[in-house]
Amino acid sequence: MEVSSVYVQGDGSEHDRPAHPRAFLTGEDRKSDHLRVGPYVDFPVSVVLPAGGSGERTGLQTPKQFCPFLGRPLISYTIESFERVSWIQTIMVVVAKENIGLMMDIIQQFQHKKVRVVPGGSTRHRSICNGVVALGEEGRPAADKPKVVIIHDAVRPFVDEDFLYKIAVAAKEQGAAGAIRPLVSTVIATTSEGYLDHSLERAKYRASEMPQGFTYDVIYQAYQRCTESDFEFGTECLHLALQYCGTNAKLIDGPPTLWKVTYKRDLAAAESIIKETLSQSACLITGGLEVGVTLGKFLQKAFGSLDMELNVTPDLMGDNVRYLLKDWNFILVSVSPSCLSEVEAILTALQAENRALLNPAVIIWMHLSGTDEPSTSGRPAESAALISLASTAKLRNILLYGIRLHQPEDTEQWERSASRVADIASALIRDRNPALVGQLLQA
Amino acid sequence: MEVSSVYVQGDGSEHDRPAHPRAFLTGEDRKSDHLRVGPYVDFPVSVVLPAGGSGERTGLQTPKQFCPFLGRPLISYTIESFERVSWIQTIMVVVAKENIGLMMDIIQQFQHKKVRVVPGGSTRHRSICNGVVALGEEGRPAADKPKVVIIHDAVRPFVDEDFLYKIAVAAKEQGAAGAIRPLVSTVIATTSEGYLDHSLERAKYRASEMPQGFTYDVIYQAYQRCTESDFEFGTECLHLALQYCGTNAKLIDGPPTLWKVTYKRDLAAAESIIKETLSQSACLITGGLEVGVTLGKFLQKAFGSLDMELNVTPDLMGDNVRYLLKDWNFILVSVSPSCLSEVEAILTALQAENRALLNPAVIIWMHLSGTDEPSTSGRPAESAALISLASTAKLRNILLYGIRLHQPEDTEQWERSASRVADIASALIRDRNPALVGQLLQA
Repeated sequence: MEVSSVYVQGDGSEHDRPAHPRAFLTGEDRKSDHLRVGPYVDFPVSVVLPAGGSGERTGLQTPKQFCPFLGRPLISYTIESFERVSWIQTIMVVVAKENIGLMMDIIQQFQHKKVRVVPGGSTRHRSICNGVVALGEEGRPAADKPKVVIIHDAVRPFVDEDFLYKIAVAAKEQGAAGAIRPLVSTVIATTSEGYLDHSLERAKYRASEMPQGFTYDVIYQAYQRCTESDFEFGTECLHLALQYCGTNAKLIDGPPTLWKVTYKRDLAAAESIIKETLSQSACLITGGLEVGVTLGKFLQKAFGSLDMELNVTPDLMGDNVRYLLKDWNFILVSVSPSCLSEVEAILTALQAENRALLNPAVIIWMHLSGTDEPSTSGRPAESAALISLASTAKLRNILLYGIRLHQPEDTEQWERSASRVADIASALIRDRNPALVGQLLQA
Repeated sequence: MEVSSVYVQGDGSEHDRPAHPRAFLTGEDRKSDHLRVGPYVDFPVSVVLPAGGSGERTGLQTPKQFCPFLGRPLISYTIESFERVSWIQTIMVVVAKENIGLMMDIIQQFQHKKVRVVPGGSTRHRSICNGVVALGEEGRPAADKPKVVIIHDAVRPFVDEDFLYKIAVAAKEQGAAGAIRPLVSTVIATTSEGYLDHSLERAKYRASEMPQGFTYDVIYQAYQRCTESDFEFGTECLHLALQYCGTNAKLIDGPPTLWKVTYKRDLAAAESIIKETLSQSACLITGGLEVGVTLGKFLQKAFGSLDMELNVTPDLMGDNVRYLLKDWNFILVSVSPSCLSEVEAILTALQAENRALLNPAVIIWMHLSGTDEPSTSGRPAESAALISLASTAKLRNILLYGIRLHQPEDTEQWERSASRVADIASALIRDRNPALVGQLLQA
């Protein structure tokens, strides 16, 4: 079998790449992110990612692995899930010939480092086989040849490192391992006339999911030995390993996040998971202003009741740069009605760190108007400047909004105001709606 | 078995209730909605809706059938799906004793007319059995006793009339009928040690879904004859009908919309379907203004490219009241900067029609400022009035937003402006975000 594989880029250090959003959920600083190592796999592991599906079941024209979520195709999220695992070497993506150009563009745009692309075959098994063969032809030194191959789906974007570890280790020990999930529905056998024949006892069966892992030898041999009929009609790699290599796969209960984006409704579910992941916390930059500190105090409580964490910092200098590197949402306190230079500074800093490469960042310019200014008045120059800056920021994948608040006078007013600000800011952060950038909202 | 059933309200005419949102997708007018009849079932059909689940798999405290979507619990959407089918008599909802009060509140708040409530048993089969027995004890004249009982899940909200018709007719003819769907994953049998035993040939099996239908006699007898073990561990009504009444159910391919809200991600999927359903179209009320007609012309095109239909009407009087009765989204053109009386009039009309009872309506006050006014200036009085009116409207389940546009001068400007307005308005309509009501946005 001849497989032409397109080399993209060698493995680079992963240190400068934003880790997966979920790595940024808590207050760990940058250093601990670097030191943080899960269980480590000490043998070579590579991945085959078949991405040839046509997406018929979503009812959309674009195959679902290429559907954009917050501006990025689903397959890039799946690749990111593997790329952030330090012990994974190569991610061999198998795509239909007509989509190779598209795939190469995605890799370049989102700066994926570990990916190689091979053309798919006419069926799922032929595509996976192409990927497995290409991994063997990578020209690595013998010690680096993949010991274990993990096979996954491009449309299951949320696989995590801990589970990949379990699959890799079990595959090395048993020859094959696969994720399973409980059945959601009863499975029934039908007669040829469309009547109930019998129903299966749900407790005895499981749904076979992805990822699955195999030693290279097992999966390679299975594909060497299987029949044309297997290539044409089969779907289950575990079955081939059993039938042609006598390997009974170890089955491991997977988390619900392994689910496969199949129907149109799943697109909404995936988008919601991505948005939720990016909206766990926000960073309030007080600018060292006393009123900013006061706002922070009240806002922390208000955000807390909305299940969003608020980190308060005077600036993003020195050690505080850690917030820039782990948060996706920034609220910048300002008392100057016409000065957006602090916003420009964050935009520049985010861009310097390549921070919005994979996920859109949100900046909310929070203008506290003084007690002598009428709170509901708008200033043409201010609005126009915000709109213009927001258009520029949007091109860099940064969503800029404004909120104006008339500075409260007593504790009770502060609490009410903070609650309104938190409602509006968390709505902007959670929706991440590009159509509303540049708007100056009234708290 | 003693079952106390709580009577709610007799079947009323369904004419005055807002039909299901999906009935409003196209330009049919009110009259044709009334005349529109699907295939009619000429025998008595009632429904048992078990709603006793604890929602463990969503990881939430509230059982998922009671989780709110746009302010309304999921089960109310499911009830609505059945209530709008004219040939369905009673919807017997079976809930855990501790949730009966909550269920009664839901029925009252959303004015459900065909629902009765019975307490559930300790397992799914015991709960369904309670519902079946209660249907037999309703005290209807013999001719109205249910011939067919449809059993469904409270957490499958999107069942449609055409499919219910198929199930009801097949159940009457065959004694039993059930929805099936293709398997998404391969099903495998495991050894007791957690290894692969064998995988099933996917093409020979189906997932058994809901709804299912039975003649009253078949389901009643099945429950009379089945064992304690069936009551305790069984889940599949089709299986009982086969085992105890010798009835092989007719299996019918169901649409993907039958899916069951199971995991947390499904909550997002359900919300997205509901929001999409409410956002298919909007109604632009020009107020008879020339500039409103011009805006409508450009907006229709801009909305079209966003896959949203825009109906343009001078007002909601006379025949045009049909838009009030079938649309969920209204854009009201105004050239007077301080006059919100037209908004108040729509609010009153929507309330008079009970239009926002089941789903939140959206009103966008679209202010076209004159060529002599600077477009970005805000007027304190105007903003304050909008915020205040929006707070009142929100209490009536109506979401009010404002968009200000500086009146364009030539065709090219009109096209750009219309595109911005459509972007913002469609974002507001699709997100339906209560936190942003009262905001006056800048187009």
